[in-house]
Parts: sequence; C-alpha cells; structure tokens
Amino acid sequence: MSGTSGPSAFEERTRRCQRRLGEVGADAAVLFPSTNLFYASGFREEPGERHLLLFVPREGSPAFVAPEMYDEQIRDASWVEDIRLWADGEDPTELVAELADEMDLRGGHLLVDDTMWALFTQDLRETLPEATFGLASEVFEDLRMRKDETELDALRRAGALADRVSVEIRELGEEAVGMTETELAEEIEGLLAEAGGEEVAFGTIAGSGPNGAKPHHRHGDREIRRGDPVVLDFGAYLDGYPGDQTRTVVFAGDPPEGYQQVHETVREAQQAAVEAVEPGVPAEQIDRAAREVIEDAGYGDEFVHRTGHGVGLDVHESPYIVEGNQTELEPGMVFSVEPGVYLEGEFGVRIEDLVVVTDEGCERLNDSPRTWESL
Amino acid sequence: MSGTSGPSAFEERTRRCQRRLGEVGADAAVLFPSTNLFYASGFREEPGERHLLLFVPREGSPAFVAPEMYDEQIRDASWVEDIRLWADGEDPTELVAELADEMDLRGGHLLVDDTMWALFTQDLRETLPEATFGLASEVFEDLRMRKDETELDALRRAGALADRVSVEIRELGEEAVGMTETELAEEIEGLLAEAGGEEVAFGTIAGSGPNGAKPHHRHGDREIRRGDPVVLDFGAYLDGYPGDQTRTVVFAGDPPEGYQQVHETVREAQQAAVEAVEPGVPAEQIDRAAREVIEDAGYGDEFVHRTGHGVGLDVHESPYIVEGNQTELEPGMVFSVEPGVYLEGEFGVRIEDLVVVTDEGCERLNDSPRTWESL
Repeated sequence: MSGTSGPSAFEERTRRCQRRLGEVGADAAVLFPSTNLFYASGFREEPGERHLLLFVPREGSPAFVAPEMYDEQIRDASWVEDIRLWADGEDPTELVAELADEMDLRGGHLLVDDTMWALFTQDLRETLPEATFGLASEVFEDLRMRKDETELDALRRAGALADRVSVEIRELGEEAVGMTETELAEEIEGLLAEAGGEEVAFGTIAGSGPNGAKPHHRHGDREIRRGDPVVLDFGAYLDGYPGDQTRTVVFAGDPPEGYQQVHETVREAQQAAVEAVEPGVPAEQIDRAAREVIEDAGYGDEFVHRTGHGVGLDVHESPYIVEGNQTELEPGMVFSVEPGVYLEGEFGVRIEDLVVVTDEGCERLNDSPRTWESL
Repeated sequence: MSGTSGPSAFEERTRRCQRRLGEVGADAAVLFPSTNLFYASGFREEPGERHLLLFVPREGSPAFVAPEMYDEQIRDASWVEDIRLWADGEDPTELVAELADEMDLRGGHLLVDDTMWALFTQDLRETLPEATFGLASEVFEDLRMRKDETELDALRRAGALADRVSVEIRELGEEAVGMTETELAEEIEGLLAEAGGEEVAFGTIAGSGPNGAKPHHRHGDREIRRGDPVVLDFGAYLDGYPGDQTRTVVFAGDPPEGYQQVHETVREAQQAAVEAVEPGVPAEQIDRAAREVIEDAGYGDEFVHRTGHGVGLDVHESPYIVEGNQTELEPGMVFSVEPGVYLEGEFGVRIEDLVVVTDEGCERLNDSPRTWESL
C-alpha cells in the first residue's frame, strides 16, 4: 500500500508540513497511526493501544517512538531513519520525554493527530505538562485537500471500479429478490475484491425499503422484495485511495407511490450541485445548490445530512460540503456530491458521485447510470 | 449485532458503570463511538468526524448528543431515551454545553473514552474549560474484563469458527504453493465468511518466509514456496465478539534448518503459559512462564512482544499478559496466549490460543492442531 509515491515524495510532504508548522506558530506535529502518519512517513498501520508516535519538529529530522516489533516494518516503509524503540514491559513515556528534551518541545505548542486516542493525548499532557496542544489538521488539512496527479489517478481508478460493480450488481434484476441485504452486501464486496479492490472503503450499505430511510444503516437480515427501493452505497480502496458511490435502485417490480418523483428530485439536486462546482466557489454553495432543488420539491426536512465530504486517504476529510463551510474550492480538491431524501418508515433515495475540481468546473469520478430501473 | 443482550442488560451495565463512577470520584463518563458505547448503550457505530457522544452522569439518566440522521438508529438500538440531535451545519458544542449545565458537569471530573479522537477531547476542553479529564477505562476496564455467560458463549463459537477455518486452510497443502500471501489471506477470509463469521476481527496475517519474522506484517505479493514457514493469524466476529488464533505451518516441502527446533520451543512455551493460568495468579506470571522456556532455548531476544492481550468487544483489551501487569487473574477473564520467535530475514513462529480463566485453571477457546506439518 506504500506504492503510491516513492520515499522522496513522502519526505517532500514532510518538508511542506514543517514549513506549515512555522507558518501557524507550532513547534511540532505528533502523529500516531493515521492517514496523516502515512501521508508524511510512508508507514501505514491501524491505531492500537501501544505507543507508536511520530514527532515532526518544525525544523530538523522527525523521529518515531515505536514498539520494538515494528522496527523492521517502519524501516522498510518509511524514509524516516530515527526510530526509538521500546519493548513490551518498558515505559514508552521515557522515550517521549527524552525526545521532547532533544527537540526542545517541553514548553512548546504541539499539534496532535486529530484522530489520536485520548489514551495518548492524556499521556502526552502528563509527560509534557508545560506544553500546549492543538490539532494536526491545522497543518495537514490544507496540504492533503489538494490532490497531486498520483492521488487523482488512484481516485479515478477506484471510481471506475465502483462504477463497474454498480452495473454488475444492478444486472442481478429479479435474482436480487429474496436475497437479504447482508447477502447482497456480500455479493457487492465479492465483486469489488474480484475487480481488484484492496479492501472496502467503508461498511457497504444495502438499505432496502424502510431501512433505506436510515442514512447510516448498513445491512441486515431484511429480505429484498419486489418493488423495494434499495440504497446501494459502497467502494473499495485502490493504492490506498477509496471509491465511494451511491445509487438507489429497484431490482424488480413497481416502486411504491411517490418514489419516482423523489428519485427524480434527488437526481436533479445532484445534477444541480455538480454543475455548481468550480474554482473559487465556497463549499457551502454546492450544498445550497442541492438543497434548493429538494426544498422546492417540498422535501427539505427529509434531506437530513450535508451534501458531501472530501475524499482522499480518508473516506471523510476536508472539504466538507455543508452550510457554513466557506472554504473556496480549488483545482485538485475531491469530494462527494450525495444529496438524499429519507421518508421514515417508507424508503430513502440517495445518489452520490465523487468529483474533482478542475480549472473550469469539475470532472465526475463516477459515471454509472443514475437511473433507478433494473439494468 | 445488538442481539447479544436485551436492552435491560445494557441498562444494567450502565448502572454498574455509574456505581463505579462514584467509587473512583468521577462525575461522568463521556463516550464516543466505541466498544464502551456499545457495551453501555447497545448502539454500535464506527468513529467518525461528527459529534456523537454519550454522557453517562454518576446519577440520573444518560443522554446522547448525536447527528440528526442517527435518530432512528439510536432509538432502535439503545435503551437510552434522551437523544439531543444536531443537524449538519449546526454547532454541536452548544448541545454539549447545555447538557453539561443540566448535569452540573462544568467543573466536574469527566472520564473520556480511551479511544476518543483528539478532535473531540480538544473540543470538550474548550467547551468545558473548568472540567478535569481522565480515561473511561478507569470505570469500564474492570467491568468488561469479567465476561458474562452470553459473552463467553459468543467467544467460544468465534473460537470454534477460527479453528474450523484453520483446519480447512491447512488442508490446502501443495495447493498453497505458488499462491501469494494476499491470495491466501483472501481464501482465509472467504472461508471465515462462509462459516458464518460477521467480519474479520483484524487484518488477516499470512506472513511467509522472512515476512513471518515481522510480527505485524499482514500479507503481500510474496509467493509461498515449498518449505516456507507461514504464520497464519486470523479470526472473525460472531455476535460482536472476535476469534483470534495463530498457527505456523509449512504447506509442503521441508522447512529451513532450525525451524523444527524453534517451532517446538514456541509450542512448549505456549503450553507452559497455558498451564500457568489460574485464578489469583498475576497476569505477568503467564508472560514469564512463556518467556522462560524461550530464554532457556536461547531465543529470548527474538521473542519481541508480550505473551498476550485480553479479548472481548475489543480484540485488544485488558488484561494484557505482559511483564509489570500485576492484575490478578479471575474467572471469566479471556485473553490470548501467543508467544513467538522471530528470526529476522529468515522466518517467524507464533502459536496462539484464546483462553478463559475458570475456577481451577483455564479453558482453551481454540483447539485446532498446533503442529506445523500439512494436515
């Protein structure tokens, strides 16, 4: 998974991070297993209960504090050469204190990873009682929001992969009737793996009938019936970058009353939002473009979430497409456009594509049919 | 996944949590999407960037602060009735401040979830500048360490499932030669799903040859050769509780020089550790029992990790089987016993079973063959 850029690309990112630390008046970023850690070091791991920290000082060389058993893995994956190891049974905070002395951070302002566990932030506060703390997103958000060509290439391929599976799954037609949501989700995940996906980017959503009205319902043992609207939201990673696409379909039979109108409304809202994307426009403007269409159709109260979220190494990252976010769109930003209408106890409809902002507007990273009828 | 206990079981757990809050002198626990949140409320979700918090005061009723779109899901899954909703675009910290006033927590001592993201702990500190903070494990660790019968039943079945797949995968024999580690891992994950596993409990490990010497290497594109030792470490969830089992095998051909002796040493170490388990014994004693065997055989420096970790709703939780942990074992505690020897550049050997402490000793939750030869 570290194959997206050579070591020197990771090092270059760290140098940019260090320049930003200076600009925002911070003395160091302290990362733990996260996408920021991967972005800067090339080393990827899941969060865990052992101290595994990367200190990136404003100047000079970064250093890991890591469990002994990660030694070889970090050396293989990362350009960072300074690795301070501790063994199970030893106290890692001694290494943290030593490093803080060497880097002169005891009274410094430290930006901790936004997803760092309280277990470690509490511990850093106790080990370095004079230090003050902020969030690493202050430095990383800006850097990561603008994707480079390697990143865009991976995102395009992850989008095409989700598109392909979307078409394949819709071709089930009548065959999907009688399957449980969970069986359908497993079918989707199998197709994603067969098509070359690394792992699913998030819990696959197959929400049928009234379950589709719960935006974050994943899947359960409800059987899909004829005429059920089914919300299908899924994607897989390629080279560490995720796909994320939603279609709402009816596999067989006639949909419930009112469904066609709601689907058409959501589709128009999605189209209007995509058309509103261009450099210089504030992110909230894209949310408004979608919301206006849905409000005009009388479903404003049933569009219960923001219009989208940025996508990169994290499936949810900046820029968030939400009222109040005045971040101006720039070429290279990638985010989802996914309005929805949720009628409690009846059904839900959501349509989602990823887009990348271009010099003149945007490019969709998904382009499978946005219709609801069986393919 | 909420089917492991009825709502009243979750409520009873919360009442125990509240009694413990009183005992440790804390005013509330503040949870976010985590296994503690599920344990207390019955509602399960992955961590995310939106404020989704459960306040459990020392006395009185707990309350959620949650994104509007989770309303129905929380009501379906949890016995907690007080749900304060915020919509995308609104400021959730206003709800947090209101709730803190109602619960009289502004100057209180709050125990935050150990895995709570810095994004939220920083925010709580800003919203409640007079409050002091500790970790929720102070309350939950003790409660969760002792498993009840429902939990043990799920863990036993998850163990049997991993055992079955372990046997099936070893029956590949010659067929495994030429497969990549990733293909083998996919095969394992397919078998786990077929056998009824919910999702994998952690990234499946299939570390062949020198990759087996990196304890946390998962799998890559290295092809399995005749004579390769392969470390296979995997498990799946059943009713929300994980399996976790390791065997080190040679699918075909003769293993490298020294392998048989290392395997025998690890197997003896694992046996010695399992035999050391009984109520009243400190956790570190189990680590010592394994380490002694490995040190006596001359591989002490190559056993680079602790002997095990507790297993429950989290795959890694208390009690940790590590030097320095003087927690006395009690009936109902469940943990892994997994010594290993790692020869850099050559191969690794690890053998792991889960055990539950009984009145007289322990019961293994895994019992597939611990041999290395093809089955």
